[in-house]
Amino acid sequence: MTDKAVVLLSGGLDSATCLALAREQGFACYALSLDYGQRHRVELEAAERVAQSLGVVEHKMLRVDLTGIGGSALTDVDIPVPESPAQGIPVTYVPARNTLLLALALGWAEVLGAHGLFIGVNAVDYSGYPDCRPEFIAAFQQVADLGTKAGAEGRGFRVHTPLIRLRKAEIIREGTRLSVDYGLTVSCYQADAHGRACGVCDSCRIRAEGFRAAGVPDPTRYAPRA
Amino acid sequence: MTDKAVVLLSGGLDSATCLALAREQGFACYALSLDYGQRHRVELEAAERVAQSLGVVEHKMLRVDLTGIGGSALTDVDIPVPESPAQGIPVTYVPARNTLLLALALGWAEVLGAHGLFIGVNAVDYSGYPDCRPEFIAAFQQVADLGTKAGAEGRGFRVHTPLIRLRKAEIIREGTRLSVDYGLTVSCYQADAHGRACGVCDSCRIRAEGFRAAGVPDPTRYAPRA
Repeated sequence: MTDKAVVLLSGGLDSATCLALAREQGFACYALSLDYGQRHRVELEAAERVAQSLGVVEHKMLRVDLTGIGGSALTDVDIPVPESPAQGIPVTYVPARNTLLLALALGWAEVLGAHGLFIGVNAVDYSGYPDCRPEFIAAFQQVADLGTKAGAEGRGFRVHTPLIRLRKAEIIREGTRLSVDYGLTVSCYQADAHGRACGVCDSCRIRAEGFRAAGVPDPTRYAPRA
Repeated sequence: MTDKAVVLLSGGLDSATCLALAREQGFACYALSLDYGQRHRVELEAAERVAQSLGVVEHKMLRVDLTGIGGSALTDVDIPVPESPAQGIPVTYVPARNTLLLALALGWAEVLGAHGLFIGVNAVDYSGYPDCRPEFIAAFQQVADLGTKAGAEGRGFRVHTPLIRLRKAEIIREGTRLSVDYGLTVSCYQADAHGRACGVCDSCRIRAEGFRAAGVPDPTRYAPRA
């Protein structure tokens, strides 16, 4: 019987590559996206396109409204998305987002009888988010082992982070090898309603530099700058 | 300045007591309830009444629909709530629920600048849920320390579980000492639309036995049995 995995899918470049890698490893993939009231809602449409193009068994979109909590430029319209590099943890950090995403993935995995959880976190070219670090993932692995029925009964989970040690250019080369259509993905923190990228936010800058370094043509559609 | 704490509040007996204890410890309390599509929705109305009666600074209700995930008698109407004791982890276990609750509490705590998280888990008279054990809480503490901006910057969180080692009767005595009105709370897994308890599910049986053992009059309203 094919092993099942829940793959967190944001609609961005990293999670699309992560899904392609999970599929290559032979998992039957169940994609999970979270509608948390993010500004960049075109990401969710991108997630739908990516899930279809990579042939998942099922794509589930869960909704939890974090706009009432706020605290991030991605969920609070009063906090502008930065357009130049800054030191430290940026305002685009969404408090405890990956903990929440992994908790939801864990719940669904347990119901499905899936033992793999895939999350496309990256600790190299990342934007300084604490919940992308290997030590955070190791801590969540413990939570998964101890906080679930499957874990308590000895049939645990494994949290897979195939991108965690890769540079952005390496991620792009892996996805290109696996025929990921990056033209379907949206990474920009403030893409317009057509899914066109701003070209200046952290996420856009890291992505564009990744394509350059990988020597892969960049399919990103950019919005005209005012 | 008063320390802030986010207190998870289900509307049941344990979380009401947990809130009263957090307040007694001097925290400014922010109550958080999760509407996850649970059968026993009267719990949420109970949470609202408890939050008011115990004087929280704010009560936030977040909604995430877990009925599409299913896998529990509390979220899937096709799985009946058991009315007699059973071995092992019961079907009322909601996959990864406490992980999800703590993740949401952590996100809100970070935005509020709160450093306390209170959850009324109990490992003694509990119903066999793996995510009520001390080792699970310790694992989540690590996640909180490593997966947040505040944790990464050294101003971390503490997960408080004041009920974890108490018997149900001790919890009830603590709450009674602190004037918790247990008549406002609903513990039943299948309370009717008026908030009246079934009297036969695990949760009802443990609660009723707790009042007997504590020697405290039981204010629970029971539905007439057919």
